[in-house]
Amino acid sequence: MKLRGNAVVAQSGGPTAVINNSVCGVVQEWLKGEPPGKLYGALFGIRGVLEENLLDLGKQPPYIIEGLRYTPGAALGSSRYKLAREEDFARLLDAFRKHDIRYFFYIGGNDSMDTADRINRFADRVNYEIRVIGIPKTIDNDLPCTDHTPGYGSAAKFLAATVSETGLDLKGLVTSNRIVVLEAMGRNAGWLTAAAALAKREECDAPHLIYLPEVPFSKERFLEEVAENYREYRYVYIAASEGIRFDNGSYVYAGGEKDPFGHARLGGLADTLKEMIEEQLGVNVRGISLGTLQRAAAHFASRTDADEAYLVGAAAVKAAFRGETDIMITLLREESGGLYRCTSGTAVLSAVANVEKKVPAGWISPSGSYIQDIFLQYAHPLIEGEVNPVFRNGLPDFVHLQNFDLPELRRRLDRDVAGVTE
Amino acid sequence: MKLRGNAVVAQSGGPTAVINNSVCGVVQEWLKGEPPGKLYGALFGIRGVLEENLLDLGKQPPYIIEGLRYTPGAALGSSRYKLAREEDFARLLDAFRKHDIRYFFYIGGNDSMDTADRINRFADRVNYEIRVIGIPKTIDNDLPCTDHTPGYGSAAKFLAATVSETGLDLKGLVTSNRIVVLEAMGRNAGWLTAAAALAKREECDAPHLIYLPEVPFSKERFLEEVAENYREYRYVYIAASEGIRFDNGSYVYAGGEKDPFGHARLGGLADTLKEMIEEQLGVNVRGISLGTLQRAAAHFASRTDADEAYLVGAAAVKAAFRGETDIMITLLREESGGLYRCTSGTAVLSAVANVEKKVPAGWISPSGSYIQDIFLQYAHPLIEGEVNPVFRNGLPDFVHLQNFDLPELRRRLDRDVAGVTE
Repeated sequence: MKLRGNAVVAQSGGPTAVINNSVCGVVQEWLKGEPPGKLYGALFGIRGVLEENLLDLGKQPPYIIEGLRYTPGAALGSSRYKLAREEDFARLLDAFRKHDIRYFFYIGGNDSMDTADRINRFADRVNYEIRVIGIPKTIDNDLPCTDHTPGYGSAAKFLAATVSETGLDLKGLVTSNRIVVLEAMGRNAGWLTAAAALAKREECDAPHLIYLPEVPFSKERFLEEVAENYREYRYVYIAASEGIRFDNGSYVYAGGEKDPFGHARLGGLADTLKEMIEEQLGVNVRGISLGTLQRAAAHFASRTDADEAYLVGAAAVKAAFRGETDIMITLLREESGGLYRCTSGTAVLSAVANVEKKVPAGWISPSGSYIQDIFLQYAHPLIEGEVNPVFRNGLPDFVHLQNFDLPELRRRLDRDVAGVTE
Repeated sequence: MKLRGNAVVAQSGGPTAVINNSVCGVVQEWLKGEPPGKLYGALFGIRGVLEENLLDLGKQPPYIIEGLRYTPGAALGSSRYKLAREEDFARLLDAFRKHDIRYFFYIGGNDSMDTADRINRFADRVNYEIRVIGIPKTIDNDLPCTDHTPGYGSAAKFLAATVSETGLDLKGLVTSNRIVVLEAMGRNAGWLTAAAALAKREECDAPHLIYLPEVPFSKERFLEEVAENYREYRYVYIAASEGIRFDNGSYVYAGGEKDPFGHARLGGLADTLKEMIEEQLGVNVRGISLGTLQRAAAHFASRTDADEAYLVGAAAVKAAFRGETDIMITLLREESGGLYRCTSGTAVLSAVANVEKKVPAGWISPSGSYIQDIFLQYAHPLIEGEVNPVFRNGLPDFVHLQNFDLPELRRRLDRDVAGVTE
């Protein structure tokens, strides 16, 4: 069932702490037995195919491929380039033909699965035989058809540890920073923010309040809830999704800019909530905004998550070799006797593309400002275990792919697409 | 030489990831052999003595004391209460007399060493025999008379890992977030910010620019340096101390508020620099502001730092038993044949009190916007090794002292000092 020809693996969108595990899974599975051709890495996502910046991954030393298992960031480079115009698809097919690409492995989230689906349909229309397999990745955990998404467990684990540690810092210091607002990534789905609750072991522990995008935000109710908790504990720890919105649908914070997919650029919510509280309660508030650390903290990645990210990469190659196309690999949870186990399955790309899975209403507390225990049962297994990176001079010794002169390529890409919004 | 009587250990100011190692060192050393009396923990710093909220640490289960070795935050509670008025000292001595306190171990930074020094002098004046020993602690690493300060190594290690990881995130993604500004704690000394340089392994790696409070900040030069690096790499990673100031001495960012010691409250610098760059270069900038995580990230503490924090705690008890008073324990670096070793020494409190040790001018690059290799040689040994906490449900299982009802005590403290600025 193996189709003779070459393959491309590409990374898309924001990286995760374990995204390179999926690349590692693809490479190691591809090289097992008799590969039907070469396996290229597309440099900087789909643009690497369009512009034919392809790296022969079979030529990388095995220790570097293995080192991808603990290296964060997109090792191949990623982009948010939106493949929309007909000529983009035509150009892509030209590149596929020229390099005899018969397998396309695309690691990404909702937008990327849509792109993969379109590529598959375009190839079909022009009668070009290719197997297109999506590999799920997002810290947002908002992909449908899969129990959870690789990348989420590690982000959740790091976020929960952060809440636990900064929560202890807050509790133990009688000073004027009495309230902490932690801003977590998450535009429309509150999975990552909800993970803050994993930190709580006793009632007085952080977090006390959790605000998700799934629940319309009311400033009045918010200030009441903060005041109530402050009266009780004399300190309050709040976790909030950057994407929370008022009843009328407008973001509580939005800088006004848009990304290439038309989504508002968020960030800065912690300051907005800080101002609200300080104005009303006259208590000093400290905002914490971890930025990209939420999706990059490989030093505290979840072993379970890292292994599952590898699994979906390897499963994608197996599925392609079986002759499948137009699918995304999914994760299936099997629980029996309280033991967590996870295997892989598949879903058609069109079922995944552009659909966002949100936190179920029934998992959110009736107050709208906390999360129910059922979420903890769901999330606990996903943060289990630690990844032990190789260390050098006290820090993880992350790997870099060979023959990938990143600054040089970035400069070239910028020249080539001058004028293209990115 | 042991004086019969009881002891108090107190924590002061902002905690560190390893501050409780010092408490553990005090407790375990005190309980060895024949303790001359009880060892109390003062709850919420010096206020715990003033208000007689004392916890008998000899009654804590040994596994909880041992758990302090990986638990961040001030386990005893800390405060920034400024002991200034004569009646405060009188009240303190009353409490000492009442509980027969003959040993006072004070874990803190510059301000706390000043307080300890005053307590010692006051006791001397009123002929109350007590041994006052300072135990150094600060992520700022700005205490004189010691090679470095416990708490710094762990903060440096976590900060460097953060720069390394978010640097890879930045490099690997061709998108509109092209520039990252990481704001690090540090009012007047740039030690922690300088630690960002530990992340760099190749020239194109983060960080590219480092701004310390030791160097007057020029907006024009800053924008030129950012633009130059942006032309070279098409991405720029900047680390800056929250305490950087313009030539005229005013903070680049300061909210205008002051803490009880009269220091300006900082924070928000990342946004200030973000605005400067976006306005001038028209490139999107992402700010990262780790807040208290810098001083709380015990999940990635330095083994070396944790052990040294324990060492200074144990050494304080030994020094007191030898009959010493009015001293702070110091760390002495012994390097021979490239091997790092560290032992403890002592310095008189008055030599430490209110003196800030800054990054030497000769360690800063001539440009003023990076750090020299000599700093890396100094800092590397301090971030070596990892602490392995006990885990439960995928997260470090931090300990809480028994019989310390923290919210209840916080509520009571707030009632008692209503009106006192804190």
